[in-house]
Amino acid sequence: MKTATEILEEKCRAAKAASRRLAYVSTEVKNRALDGIARSLSNEKDRILAANKIDTDEARATGMGTAMLDRLLLTTERLEAMAADVRAVAALPDPVGEVWDMRTLPNGLTIGKKRVPLGVIGVIYESRPNVTVDIVSLCLKAGNAVILRGGKEALNSNLALAAVVQEAASAAGLPEGSIQFIDNTDRALVSQLLGKSDIINLMIPRGGAGLIKFVREKATMPVVAGGIGVCHTYIDGEADIEKAVAIAHNAKVQRPTVCNALDSLLVHTGIAKEYLPLVAGRLAEAGVEIHADQRALAILKKAPSLKLKPAKEEDWGKEFLSLTIAIKVVGSLDEALEHIAAHGSGHSEAIVTENYGAAMRFLNEVDAACVYANASTRFTDGGQFGLGAELGISTQKMHARGPLGLREITSYKWIIFGSGQVRP
Amino acid sequence: MKTATEILEEKCRAAKAASRRLAYVSTEVKNRALDGIARSLSNEKDRILAANKIDTDEARATGMGTAMLDRLLLTTERLEAMAADVRAVAALPDPVGEVWDMRTLPNGLTIGKKRVPLGVIGVIYESRPNVTVDIVSLCLKAGNAVILRGGKEALNSNLALAAVVQEAASAAGLPEGSIQFIDNTDRALVSQLLGKSDIINLMIPRGGAGLIKFVREKATMPVVAGGIGVCHTYIDGEADIEKAVAIAHNAKVQRPTVCNALDSLLVHTGIAKEYLPLVAGRLAEAGVEIHADQRALAILKKAPSLKLKPAKEEDWGKEFLSLTIAIKVVGSLDEALEHIAAHGSGHSEAIVTENYGAAMRFLNEVDAACVYANASTRFTDGGQFGLGAELGISTQKMHARGPLGLREITSYKWIIFGSGQVRP
Repeated sequence: MKTATEILEEKCRAAKAASRRLAYVSTEVKNRALDGIARSLSNEKDRILAANKIDTDEARATGMGTAMLDRLLLTTERLEAMAADVRAVAALPDPVGEVWDMRTLPNGLTIGKKRVPLGVIGVIYESRPNVTVDIVSLCLKAGNAVILRGGKEALNSNLALAAVVQEAASAAGLPEGSIQFIDNTDRALVSQLLGKSDIINLMIPRGGAGLIKFVREKATMPVVAGGIGVCHTYIDGEADIEKAVAIAHNAKVQRPTVCNALDSLLVHTGIAKEYLPLVAGRLAEAGVEIHADQRALAILKKAPSLKLKPAKEEDWGKEFLSLTIAIKVVGSLDEALEHIAAHGSGHSEAIVTENYGAAMRFLNEVDAACVYANASTRFTDGGQFGLGAELGISTQKMHARGPLGLREITSYKWIIFGSGQVRP
Repeated sequence: MKTATEILEEKCRAAKAASRRLAYVSTEVKNRALDGIARSLSNEKDRILAANKIDTDEARATGMGTAMLDRLLLTTERLEAMAADVRAVAALPDPVGEVWDMRTLPNGLTIGKKRVPLGVIGVIYESRPNVTVDIVSLCLKAGNAVILRGGKEALNSNLALAAVVQEAASAAGLPEGSIQFIDNTDRALVSQLLGKSDIINLMIPRGGAGLIKFVREKATMPVVAGGIGVCHTYIDGEADIEKAVAIAHNAKVQRPTVCNALDSLLVHTGIAKEYLPLVAGRLAEAGVEIHADQRALAILKKAPSLKLKPAKEEDWGKEFLSLTIAIKVVGSLDEALEHIAAHGSGHSEAIVTENYGAAMRFLNEVDAACVYANASTRFTDGGQFGLGAELGISTQKMHARGPLGLREITSYKWIIFGSGQVRP
């Protein structure tokens, strides 16, 4: 019998071999595969939901919390939503094959860049089984083979989903082996996978900070991990108060559990007395707890209906992922820029101002994936940015920054058309 | 007294702080700094050459080989050539600030990408002191701070060069701290440097395979390393014989010690009897040693003037960096493609053919940074490709592939101009 290590080796080699053919499969065949996957999610619904029931029963029996259980649960509606997402990816333009910067050099060589898939993408993710289908559809559309390793809690669901997508992809004519699923949840195999720099061109961890840290430290191949967003909004002294209230409220409250939600609100001292009571009132209506620095506290303490606490040092640079906000009064744009440079995570930062120079300085000087003037940081999203779907949001500067759409999971090669040229 | 570790910490922090300001220094100031550096290389010639003499005397005393000594040696002419290179970088367009994909979304948000520097680039390099100036000029032009760690053999030369470029950069108004040089050659400090993922955005190792492997394994930040080029040229059955001889000869002989030189020549069996004696004769004139597979050997053994050996298994996928070539006869384009997929290093690969379909398949299916039809692989070079100077050649697929010019050592950020938009 083969060992788990040998099986992993085989799957890696099969993915690599498939990736070579997948790189130049036509858009038509890839779209046919995606349509097949979408159809199968409906047609094979009973098989998938039965597998999911094993996982959710097990999770309930071991006392998993309600929020986690909900993330694990699949329903007919959720499968339909997943199928719709796959169809949306099929409808996106194929990034592969795009040629740009093509030109003819004085020696007659015609040279340019051609977009190609990355090759093999590894994804290590935690409990949400819909990630299995999400990732597969994006990777396949961009011509990449994919090696998936999901969480233990969702093993049966992921196995069923992986089988369904594998069958649909093969039936449509994609190379066998394009989709690999590691069905052994032994942690040692994760380390083995992270050592496969000869096979896997990009590793994407999707999950909590612990998983991301582990993958970053152990991976021998490039890793793109985002996920952590410590987002600031700076209300300038010349902000439009109404916009400033609406933007801060939206960024904090509209969906507080995600990475592009507002964490720290910085308010210019010249506007704080007018602005803070208004925004605090709106935030309080939504049940937001406010951690205020001394100056903000002095202004806000007269409003006893607020959930108000003094900010501690660790509140700056903290990703709350909940209805909590840190508020600091700053003396200048420079102080705000310094604070963001010291505490931001390079995700999304915003200024609210009617002053042209302040907006320009903020856009120029803040070093983050997405920098906003007069808008909510909640817009940082592949769909909102018009990229179609997204694989995640990168806060790194190498390769791709911000939302990772299809183009961001490709590479390019230089192609050179000669007629016998040699170098003098 | 400060420890070496503390000094390294200080230099890292200083580079980071400088990089924030350097990111939006004007092109004019950056060019002024580069012109100043070029001038100083002439004006401070005596100081630099005196320092270099200490290194070369020491190297001679410890029995360094002639080739290594030559790499270490600086002369007035070499300093002038370095200054000319710096001026050439000053003349290149500034990549920073370029804005693209700018568009207005249905909700009125105007959104696009703006090119920004990477931040801080670390470079660990071996004995050629001219690398110090090369790298500094490219990094500064692209708005990056740089931390340099050169080899022990060139320490005095590098110290003098670093001081000269630091002084010139400061005098021109670049932020203090933009150029850091680690003057302690203790190996432990390299490991410390490789752990600074919070400071250094990109690490570039320049040197032998041992250095590159060490950096890849230990670095916690992204690494772009190239340098290793196992390059194939495939002579198709429908090649133009004359072009095929000229291209193979040029790729092997024009400069055999570099990464884009030809290593393995694959020859279609249908053309081998005619082609091999011709190319082997030309290669023999240049003193090339031929490691031939059985079929090539059978054709070539009648020509006793050749330096001919049977190829061993380890000749395939070997980077010779010398006047040695491996030659294999293949039965088909497919066999050539398989051989290249198995043994290539993803650097530069070429086909010589007059058959349209074969050329297209080769360009499509070979997975390498640079893929050629009917030209010598020796063209893989930033200067030859029209990028101006280059920092190296990347054989990775992430971020940038092929020659790394100025644009390839930048990142981008999304800039978003709103007028109060919130996410519904």
